[in-house]
Amino acid sequence: MTTELEHLAARLREFARVRDWEQFHTPKNLVMALAGEVGELAAEFQWLTADESRSPDPETLARMRTELGDVTLYLVRLADVLGVDLMAAATAKLDDNDRRYDADLYRGSARKAPPSARGD
Amino acid sequence: MTTELEHLAARLREFARVRDWEQFHTPKNLVMALAGEVGELAAEFQWLTADESRSPDPETLARMRTELGDVTLYLVRLADVLGVDLMAAATAKLDDNDRRYDADLYRGSARKAPPSARGD
Amino acid sequence: MTTELEHLAARLREFARVRDWEQFHTPKNLVMALAGEVGELAAEFQWLTADESRSPDPETLARMRTELGDVTLYLVRLADVLGVDLMAAATAKLDDNDRRYDADLYRGSARKAPPSARGD
Amino acid sequence: MTTELEHLAARLREFARVRDWEQFHTPKNLVMALAGEVGELAAEFQWLTADESRSPDPETLARMRTELGDVTLYLVRLADVLGVDLMAAATAKLDDNDRRYDADLYRGSARKAPPSARGD
Repeated sequence: MTTELEHLAARLREFARVRDWEQFHTPKNLVMALAGEVGELAAEFQWLTADESRSPDPETLARMRTELGDVTLYLVRLADVLGVDLMAAATAKLDDNDRRYDADLYRGSARKAPPSARGD
Repeated sequence: MTTELEHLAARLREFARVRDWEQFHTPKNLVMALAGEVGELAAEFQWLTADESRSPDPETLARMRTELGDVTLYLVRLADVLGVDLMAAATAKLDDNDRRYDADLYRGSARKAPPSARGD
Repeated sequence: MTTELEHLAARLREFARVRDWEQFHTPKNLVMALAGEVGELAAEFQWLTADESRSPDPETLARMRTELGDVTLYLVRLADVLGVDLMAAATAKLDDNDRRYDADLYRGSARKAPPSARGD
Repeated sequence: MTTELEHLAARLREFARVRDWEQFHTPKNLVMALAGEVGELAAEFQWLTADESRSPDPETLARMRTELGDVTLYLVRLADVLGVDLMAAATAKLDDNDRRYDADLYRGSARKAPPSARGD
């Protein structure tokens, strides 16, 4: 059975193939494109307060959605070109975080999220 | 039916809840964490040639996979907190790109990918 | 007279030359390195509140200072390799912003900083 | 004597003051703005080959110069708000790299730049 991410990766592969853009889609180029899109996404949040970022107005949210779409496209394409199973990679990392950050030890403001949530 | 991304979002929601980290997971904070992880991912590629980036050695690829996992976790968590359906957002953007970049017009080196692949 | 930025650019040029690293210092590679360092810098701020970010504790501030140093080194090296005068570029942009954002029109919360401060 | 960076920092301080934008210029917001601008700068390079990035056409170079100006403005402003002397931070880091990466040991392709040039 094809999952939704596999289906999206296949569509992107075909999108690049019919345009003969595979030559541009090196992992190196794609990670730069990903970084560029994440920069655009971050720019939508830069002057918002924490609270404002929780409830953006409709037009801002629409732009965020578009940028989130772009980020997803490049992320899925990059993983596909590298032969990495994105869902397996994410799940493995979350399993790891689950073990590493004991819920009782890391709860709330105690140690705060920095060392923990970054997972490093 | 729950898709794999919905399932991952639900796990991340629970991960934050049991640690009382929801207070740290504002969209603003999460987009910064996402940018940080993409920076770490980009760092893996910075000194590689285009060709080298296509076939990284096993240890480098393992680090890339871990970073791709981190990026995916923050992206899915951010979209969830904003109430954005990531797959719908990506599909809408790809449909849009499909219409915008006529395969014959944008094929190969002719105009090259920059204005086109960025989708803006 | 040599300015401080020109002096730093000259030191970086020599640093790369004696190690035969000029081959790695393409503008493309350097901008990726810059993005990576900015990602590390952003990571220092991701879980801080706005207020906390104004007065980081000494160890956090020391790490921020180190990251700011790294960002500056890559920025100066990138501009040098491209033949761009960084100070002239920054001054030109600030002159431009000064004209564009009339102080009375853009004061305070009225329109808020987003469209304005980004300068686009 | 005021250096060029101190002069630029002073102009930016005044720019924010007369517009009552100091309230938006928290270190946290400024590092996000910096990340956004670096993303825009990276986007200019994403589809260029290494060689093309060395000699961009005049219009591309002009856009790169503008983006480099934006990056510099936010970097100088961020350091100023944090009370960090950017030139001292960069010089300290370069002194450190000079000691750490022995020219003979790290020359050329031998070990290549990754572990070394990143300075970590």
